[in-house]
Amino acid sequence: MAFRTTSYLLSKFGTQNLTKVSLLNGVQNVIMCDSKTRNSLSTPMMDNLINSIREGGLNDEVRVIVLSSEGPVFSAGHNFKELLPELGRKEHEKVFNKCAELMMSIVESPVPVIAKINGVAAAAGCQLVAQCDMAICTTKSSFSTPGATFGIFCSTPGIPLARCVPKMNALQMLFTGLPISAQEAKQIGLVSKLSTEESLQDDLDVITSAIISKSRAVIELGKRFYYKQIQFDLKSAYEMGGTTMVDNINLPDGQEGVKSFIEKRKAKWVK
Amino acid sequence: MAFRTTSYLLSKFGTQNLTKVSLLNGVQNVIMCDSKTRNSLSTPMMDNLINSIREGGLNDEVRVIVLSSEGPVFSAGHNFKELLPELGRKEHEKVFNKCAELMMSIVESPVPVIAKINGVAAAAGCQLVAQCDMAICTTKSSFSTPGATFGIFCSTPGIPLARCVPKMNALQMLFTGLPISAQEAKQIGLVSKLSTEESLQDDLDVITSAIISKSRAVIELGKRFYYKQIQFDLKSAYEMGGTTMVDNINLPDGQEGVKSFIEKRKAKWVK
Amino acid sequence: MAFRTTSYLLSKFGTQNLTKVSLLNGVQNVIMCDSKTRNSLSTPMMDNLINSIREGGLNDEVRVIVLSSEGPVFSAGHNFKELLPELGRKEHEKVFNKCAELMMSIVESPVPVIAKINGVAAAAGCQLVAQCDMAICTTKSSFSTPGATFGIFCSTPGIPLARCVPKMNALQMLFTGLPISAQEAKQIGLVSKLSTEESLQDDLDVITSAIISKSRAVIELGKRFYYKQIQFDLKSAYEMGGTTMVDNINLPDGQEGVKSFIEKRKAKWVK
Repeated sequence: MAFRTTSYLLSKFGTQNLTKVSLLNGVQNVIMCDSKTRNSLSTPMMDNLINSIREGGLNDEVRVIVLSSEGPVFSAGHNFKELLPELGRKEHEKVFNKCAELMMSIVESPVPVIAKINGVAAAAGCQLVAQCDMAICTTKSSFSTPGATFGIFCSTPGIPLARCVPKMNALQMLFTGLPISAQEAKQIGLVSKLSTEESLQDDLDVITSAIISKSRAVIELGKRFYYKQIQFDLKSAYEMGGTTMVDNINLPDGQEGVKSFIEKRKAKWVK
Repeated sequence: MAFRTTSYLLSKFGTQNLTKVSLLNGVQNVIMCDSKTRNSLSTPMMDNLINSIREGGLNDEVRVIVLSSEGPVFSAGHNFKELLPELGRKEHEKVFNKCAELMMSIVESPVPVIAKINGVAAAAGCQLVAQCDMAICTTKSSFSTPGATFGIFCSTPGIPLARCVPKMNALQMLFTGLPISAQEAKQIGLVSKLSTEESLQDDLDVITSAIISKSRAVIELGKRFYYKQIQFDLKSAYEMGGTTMVDNINLPDGQEGVKSFIEKRKAKWVK
Repeated sequence: MAFRTTSYLLSKFGTQNLTKVSLLNGVQNVIMCDSKTRNSLSTPMMDNLINSIREGGLNDEVRVIVLSSEGPVFSAGHNFKELLPELGRKEHEKVFNKCAELMMSIVESPVPVIAKINGVAAAAGCQLVAQCDMAICTTKSSFSTPGATFGIFCSTPGIPLARCVPKMNALQMLFTGLPISAQEAKQIGLVSKLSTEESLQDDLDVITSAIISKSRAVIELGKRFYYKQIQFDLKSAYEMGGTTMVDNINLPDGQEGVKSFIEKRKAKWVK
């Protein structure tokens, strides 16, 4: 790995330290540390996350972003104090605009964003998991979208959920609000890796190391194309895909990759 | 639960009693009882089902609809006597228009519709399962789309199947007509809950109770939005989603839900 | 089965024998036999495959096409010698146009195309699997999309992968390049049948026999409609589906199928 072993705080957003952000060997860890509100996605917390994700995207040393949490709750979702009826539609709209901004910042980030869960992910907390590119969780984790229990159907959490897991699993979670286990989350595709508390970090390291060993520019190109092509029919996707592959070959790191493969040596990435 | 314990026949459609319909504690049970035709989806049977589903949607006491069957066959699909070549295209068209009407009545119902299977679901019978919002089945159940065996490819059953399960599983069922087990149905997402004959009702009760404890208006709003948003790209879905969440908060039951959560008391739903 | 037991070479494409093609009892076996290049999808190999798939589609005796390989590697993907930077964009474009042509030839074939894997399927080799209608693999098989390791993100392999398996599984494969096991491939939907080396052929025979016992015209109609309807919203799909079902009934084999079912006898297909 070609990265400096530096560990430092990237950002302390505003006056509140709701997240701890560090960079080590290409991995930007963003840790929610507002366990007294069960890591609720309050507007300041969402601002923290958006800020960290965007900073990571702009920093060439950041190669992958890992979102995790302190305490037994990954995130319990929106802060209901921000959704009180007396605050009015305008204030509520701000909350959901911010939430959409957070979700899109994950998709639009040039680097992969991984959720690392060791506990409860509920409502918009579950949405945050489902919106990440990948997710790893421990066997003691659970996932639910119980908004309707409190009168607010998890309509926005249903957006990434419906794009992650089969229809019936999504609807059963949304209609009942009942939690599913880590095993079921893995089985239906809500997480891509199931681990134990003991091996969580090792299993995650395997994934992040694999990403970090590649070219940042190539990963960015691949991520952008993936989220673009899934919106098209098969034939159109292939038409765009050919151009993307040729563009990729003609990137400096594409050329270096092909050459190093033919010459049976390790590639030296430009970026 | 705020529902009267009433059990009565909701409908006896036309001159034929092809279904038994009862309402108990918010659950409308619609039981196909034409086991001599293996609960075939004849036009009168489809009329019965459409009628029951629509009546349930209009009755505020109905909070969830459960479709099940008497006998060892959940449903064997269309009645081939209605598809005889000599009847002509016009008659055949009526059958498939009716079938599409039945399928859309499930999606358009304001309450969740659950398939409860304890036996064989084949062809349009399997389509009926796949089109439901959720499905629970016993380990002795099986699922198949064997139409091509009888010269009629399960093209319309393939419509909800393709939206329920992965591509290869759908195509293998459609091309071979071979049945899959209850375990495999759970694994691929054709049912959302696997149970045994002994615990089927208990497991279903957990799901229906969870739905019934919530607000009918909130569940309706959530169901409508789910089926709307899956037709859009991610960004458009989030734009619509914010508005839906704010609309939800400003429903009487949305306001009550948030307040009761903050006040740490049980919510009292208006509707 | 109504097929002659004939086994002969269908095609020897150009000057290179990169595939062995035989027809036995309705099954066209296309075996990649370029194990010295790990069955790379070089342009000549892709031409061989396209040619065999198209020939199979035009030959009424061919009822199903099975793609497999000699040696421990199903296919390692594109031949990097064809992607060398010095060859220029035009040459690279030819490779990916050819690849898209191969992929679309599978979807457009009137008969089902099954991948049979007993080894490693990597990069465009994994793409070939994912693009098939169905896939069967042995427990010793593995699947990966490691292009980014060599500077070329598996953007085009991601196209069928994203349409086969859940989002997070697809992205984890694409970003990390790490292989998944046969068991995981079955669990996420990248193959529709998991087998052992000993029972691979028997398990495949069950699938191909089921297809061959049906009408070729009916299977073609069903395959074409499946790939059409998945591109539409639910309501539009049902509108088109009704017409397709009525067209099917009015095919000679549709009429024979319904009649034979009513008369409780074996159908005799015209085609």
